[in-house]
Amino acid sequence: MKILIAPNTFKESLSAPEVCDAIRAGILAAGFDGEIVSVPMADGGDGTMNALVASTGGEIRSVTVSDPLGRPVRAAFGLLGDGQTAVVEMAQASGLWRLFPAERNPMLTSTHGTGELIAAALEAGASTVIVGIGGSATNDGGAGMAQALGYHLLDANSDEVTGTGGTLYRISRIDSSAVISELSSARIRVACDVENPLVGPKGATRIYGPQKGATSEMFPILEAGLENLAALWERDLGVSVKDRPGAGAAGGLGAGLVAFCGAELEPGFDLVAEVSGLHKALKEADLVITGEGRVDASTAFGKVPTGVARLAYTAGVPVVCLAGDIVGDLSGLHESGITAIFPIVRGPIDLQTSMREAARLISLSTEQVLRLWMKR
Amino acid sequence: MKILIAPNTFKESLSAPEVCDAIRAGILAAGFDGEIVSVPMADGGDGTMNALVASTGGEIRSVTVSDPLGRPVRAAFGLLGDGQTAVVEMAQASGLWRLFPAERNPMLTSTHGTGELIAAALEAGASTVIVGIGGSATNDGGAGMAQALGYHLLDANSDEVTGTGGTLYRISRIDSSAVISELSSARIRVACDVENPLVGPKGATRIYGPQKGATSEMFPILEAGLENLAALWERDLGVSVKDRPGAGAAGGLGAGLVAFCGAELEPGFDLVAEVSGLHKALKEADLVITGEGRVDASTAFGKVPTGVARLAYTAGVPVVCLAGDIVGDLSGLHESGITAIFPIVRGPIDLQTSMREAARLISLSTEQVLRLWMKR
Repeated sequence: MKILIAPNTFKESLSAPEVCDAIRAGILAAGFDGEIVSVPMADGGDGTMNALVASTGGEIRSVTVSDPLGRPVRAAFGLLGDGQTAVVEMAQASGLWRLFPAERNPMLTSTHGTGELIAAALEAGASTVIVGIGGSATNDGGAGMAQALGYHLLDANSDEVTGTGGTLYRISRIDSSAVISELSSARIRVACDVENPLVGPKGATRIYGPQKGATSEMFPILEAGLENLAALWERDLGVSVKDRPGAGAAGGLGAGLVAFCGAELEPGFDLVAEVSGLHKALKEADLVITGEGRVDASTAFGKVPTGVARLAYTAGVPVVCLAGDIVGDLSGLHESGITAIFPIVRGPIDLQTSMREAARLISLSTEQVLRLWMKR
Repeated sequence: MKILIAPNTFKESLSAPEVCDAIRAGILAAGFDGEIVSVPMADGGDGTMNALVASTGGEIRSVTVSDPLGRPVRAAFGLLGDGQTAVVEMAQASGLWRLFPAERNPMLTSTHGTGELIAAALEAGASTVIVGIGGSATNDGGAGMAQALGYHLLDANSDEVTGTGGTLYRISRIDSSAVISELSSARIRVACDVENPLVGPKGATRIYGPQKGATSEMFPILEAGLENLAALWERDLGVSVKDRPGAGAAGGLGAGLVAFCGAELEPGFDLVAEVSGLHKALKEADLVITGEGRVDASTAFGKVPTGVARLAYTAGVPVVCLAGDIVGDLSGLHESGITAIFPIVRGPIDLQTSMREAARLISLSTEQVLRLWMKR
């Protein structure tokens, strides 16, 4: 008998590897003595680095990079177990969480630190870099990142323009002559689940700008900057990416990664599943246990459980999903292949307590599920 | 395939028959198309009448009787589907809930109304009367009940003494000459799970008196009254019951039922299980679903789930228990035969909401359990 554990993080409570450990403890408490395989999952957002490092037996490395406003901060990237693949989360360096609310201003912020993380990963020997791009504080189309990788962004006087959202409109040429050599041979894979184009009513500025501090006065400047950058990508780099779905992800970093780094944009869960070896781990599994902090059929929550379930369903393996909170009608989740969903709570409880006790509650709930399942 | 549904009431939220309906809805929602049998359970306390009426297809009858202070109230008894068996809950007539806190005084209260209910049940044709004796407001040793059934309790002048806790010490003779004729041929079965003797430090007065309003000043009078009654049972009725476990139940009504009515005292769950036909319903069941509002291994809660589990375990049938709240270590419950316990709540929630939504939550939880179970 073989059980595969493949949960997402329980946000603000437990990382995916910690959830795996809690589920494993519950399985053992139920007296199961077969094989147990843990493959912590992620959807390409928060927690992706941790999950992939854990599932591949890799390591976390820490370097000093620039925060969104250019201040030095320590940030981590992951080097996976194969020694060939690195994971960079842009939020580590360029995330909105790095700024106080009053500091949020996409005219001034830059992805420079994300570029430094990618450079560090390449220098560490990675030939493939997976980039997670959720939670950005920036609207710079990846200009800052590009400069960290050796690109020069020059104005009409051939002076360097420090790439931030508010300066992009002044760039008149992209100079690729000094790009770091490792980049050309590297494969850059971006976990990207948004479909927004670079500019326009559904673009980066209008849809995601306001949460980063963009005011309506800034909109024309930010939009003109991204338009200008897109035109330069086409003229100087020969890449047309403006209207591509996902170009507007992370303040245009999606497009910037494609244009500056030749990146591929891929659905986050699929990318994580492939790199973590989920498909292989599913083979000959008799039961899959997944989970997420909040499972709600009507929202983006539940992407990992449904992703796991899709694969398991194809393989004919039943899937139990554990959840900190279960919201709404579940029929859609069942159609995706989730056999049954169980809460981790045991009775009336407040959110704070359930989050604090999550590991213990997950173990207890798993034990009961296993007890029933083993009665087959 | 056959599923047996045998839950307790979810106290202050749903009756056992309502819990059965909610579980059934969940089973059907999961797509189960086999046989479903509902046997609502009880432990001999609150809800016993409802459960047995529902499980046997009986009916509720309503009559006017005396409350603990002699005021007329409407109270119900159950006539079961066999037409031969009645169920009387003493709390219907003589329960503490009938009194305002300021009215609670075991010197003045009487089980007269319970006797009237038994008499009504006998007159309705019952040859067996099951009496549930939880929640009493009385400490009269069943004296009031006896008078309602035709006993005369006479003082030294052969004048009738109205039997209440405070008058028992004045009785000097029990006269059985006018007892209603149906009583002698009837079988009286009392659901009783307490072990207290009639008097003394573990007796009715000391242990249960205070919650009924007994003060330490009343103790000597109440104790003397019960002692006197016990002596008269022995002399006039030839029944020695004072030290029998359960004699002190319900303010001595346990002993009074034995002495005045020839009753048997039986564990509540076993009695309900037998009368409801649970044993028969268990035959060929593939799964049993039980439940209770609160399951706590360390308390008296959970008597029904563990009782059901004991029988099911003997029959080799797995038992799932649903609970509004799950408290403490469950290993003892598993040892009793409960395969797995699942909460009805889906995430952080307050007690009031979970109680108000209990039926819907029970259905949703059952559906998930069934979905997993059917994947066998």
